[in-house]
Amino acid sequence: MSTPADVKAAWIAEEEAIRKNYSKPGTADRETIGRYDGLGFLHAMLRGELPYPPIMDAMNFCLLQAEKGRIVFQGSPQFGHYNPIGSIHGGWYCTILDSALGCAVHSTLPRGKGYTTLELKVNLIRALTESSGPVRAEGRIIHSGGQTGVAEATLFDSAGKLFASATTTCLIFDIPQYS
Amino acid sequence: MSTPADVKAAWIAEEEAIRKNYSKPGTADRETIGRYDGLGFLHAMLRGELPYPPIMDAMNFCLLQAEKGRIVFQGSPQFGHYNPIGSIHGGWYCTILDSALGCAVHSTLPRGKGYTTLELKVNLIRALTESSGPVRAEGRIIHSGGQTGVAEATLFDSAGKLFASATTTCLIFDIPQYS
Amino acid sequence: MSTPADVKAAWIAEEEAIRKNYSKPGTADRETIGRYDGLGFLHAMLRGELPYPPIMDAMNFCLLQAEKGRIVFQGSPQFGHYNPIGSIHGGWYCTILDSALGCAVHSTLPRGKGYTTLELKVNLIRALTESSGPVRAEGRIIHSGGQTGVAEATLFDSAGKLFASATTTCLIFDIPQYS
Amino acid sequence: MSTPADVKAAWIAEEEAIRKNYSKPGTADRETIGRYDGLGFLHAMLRGELPYPPIMDAMNFCLLQAEKGRIVFQGSPQFGHYNPIGSIHGGWYCTILDSALGCAVHSTLPRGKGYTTLELKVNLIRALTESSGPVRAEGRIIHSGGQTGVAEATLFDSAGKLFASATTTCLIFDIPQYS
Repeated sequence: MSTPADVKAAWIAEEEAIRKNYSKPGTADRETIGRYDGLGFLHAMLRGELPYPPIMDAMNFCLLQAEKGRIVFQGSPQFGHYNPIGSIHGGWYCTILDSALGCAVHSTLPRGKGYTTLELKVNLIRALTESSGPVRAEGRIIHSGGQTGVAEATLFDSAGKLFASATTTCLIFDIPQYS
Repeated sequence: MSTPADVKAAWIAEEEAIRKNYSKPGTADRETIGRYDGLGFLHAMLRGELPYPPIMDAMNFCLLQAEKGRIVFQGSPQFGHYNPIGSIHGGWYCTILDSALGCAVHSTLPRGKGYTTLELKVNLIRALTESSGPVRAEGRIIHSGGQTGVAEATLFDSAGKLFASATTTCLIFDIPQYS
Repeated sequence: MSTPADVKAAWIAEEEAIRKNYSKPGTADRETIGRYDGLGFLHAMLRGELPYPPIMDAMNFCLLQAEKGRIVFQGSPQFGHYNPIGSIHGGWYCTILDSALGCAVHSTLPRGKGYTTLELKVNLIRALTESSGPVRAEGRIIHSGGQTGVAEATLFDSAGKLFASATTTCLIFDIPQYS
Repeated sequence: MSTPADVKAAWIAEEEAIRKNYSKPGTADRETIGRYDGLGFLHAMLRGELPYPPIMDAMNFCLLQAEKGRIVFQGSPQFGHYNPIGSIHGGWYCTILDSALGCAVHSTLPRGKGYTTLELKVNLIRALTESSGPVRAEGRIIHSGGQTGVAEATLFDSAGKLFASATTTCLIFDIPQYS
């Protein structure tokens, strides 16, 4: 049976392996995005064919797994993410959770469809410190329709401790020249 | 009458003047926090007597103004805050708004009381790019009671364009040795 | 100067006057809705040209005022709206606030546009009892765009005491044959 | 294998059986509430030893199942719950979901602890009509701590179609004389 320390070691190893494939920070233009369906876009990022989003460096997390309707990001908050009162800023939770939520919606979209996040709500359940990581944000689709997507996400560590949960509403639209 | 360019120049000048007073990034321990009421803590940070929160460097924003129940943060999102699809990541909005919301609650607390954010909800209204800044997050208290605080915030630029709005619920508690 | 009792009496009188104009409970079909712009639809309801929504009887509140981007509902929760632990059920707050939020968005729409509520978040700030009324839910538009609307609302009594606040995201769409 | 019609018939039969046990609408005072732990309170209501909340009549739903951390309400929206544009008012969704969320938290509390809902957020996913019922709101605990509880809920019909999802934050407190 795997101990919590085993799980933590496996999580760290998985992140290291994935990070080796990553390209460099950057953004994709609308034409490039339009060539992929949502899941294909995320897989191209995981394989290093597309740049990874710059925010991943600022917040020290990365996309780890992507399947249709289920996404995992992993990261470790650092000293640079502290709020003034000695715990990790709520914005770090929001950023990794927003990534998991948005990509959960994106992963369900066919070629020619794009999305934008209309709103997210985050429940902060436990304090994170710079020694809490690695933690995972897992996003799951709840509803993917013609005009809107709804997803939920949780943030937890390798011992299964829950740090936050979140939900989002996304607008789904046609990317004109590709739909 | 002041033109939008005048307002933008004034905003930039105000941020530069405030940043000159700032100390270095860091966090305050519970004993230090316990010496101040909420507004006094924020003013001590503005005067450079206390360190400023490290997240402010990662996200390129700073606390600009603090009065009881009303807080202004200002910042400029950068390339390092982009998401993969070419606009500023929702996490940047959430981080500056969470700061404004939390400090709006903090600013109403007497000495011996602390707070923690239970949840926040953010509506993303317009896309930010690396040329949108400076933008301001203004937080305002809605309710400050014995056990909970509720605040709202908006994110807008010097032309008055609205980029996001947000609300929060905070838990208010005694800091044992000081209450 | 008006005392709180004066304000309360004026609120009750205003509701009585408005209720005299109301027609009967019912709903409007898409064709009827398509004949009005959003504000015109609400004014037709206030004048009794259109039926009022049946939920207003179940929850004992009514639309009181409608201008572009600002809506007031007024009502009085009753014994029939209690939860099992002796205060008014959160659902009563949500229902009157959802009405104010949705109509604030509706009031900004031109003829040929409809809306649907995607999500709302409600902060419950103080307990209501069957003797708290009348209370008002005032909705205000924050953003009205081509595809989405964002609004906020507060619930308060004639002494200005705040009971709840709320925000919503609505989807705006064409009503095909009228746009 | 059970068809959707079988499931629907079973749901209706389960509600009829439970409703036979119900007492009358009413509320419990703090002393009565203090005699039970959370789950015991809900079970006493299901057995008819305690009155059921009056809001259940106004909204035509009832508590159906209660176990620790998992709650099911069932109901059927009616003509009296319509909004002016011909679908069931968002307030109906909010009310049944708020019940499921609050009771999910309540079901985890020991004797001497009470709770109050601080906020809820509801995503409305599909339109309900007066012929959609019966639908179920299932609430599940996410976090139950010393001071706060977080729960999630979904609203779905007997064919598994999803109509809404929701999350809540509750404040947990001591009921003074019983804790």
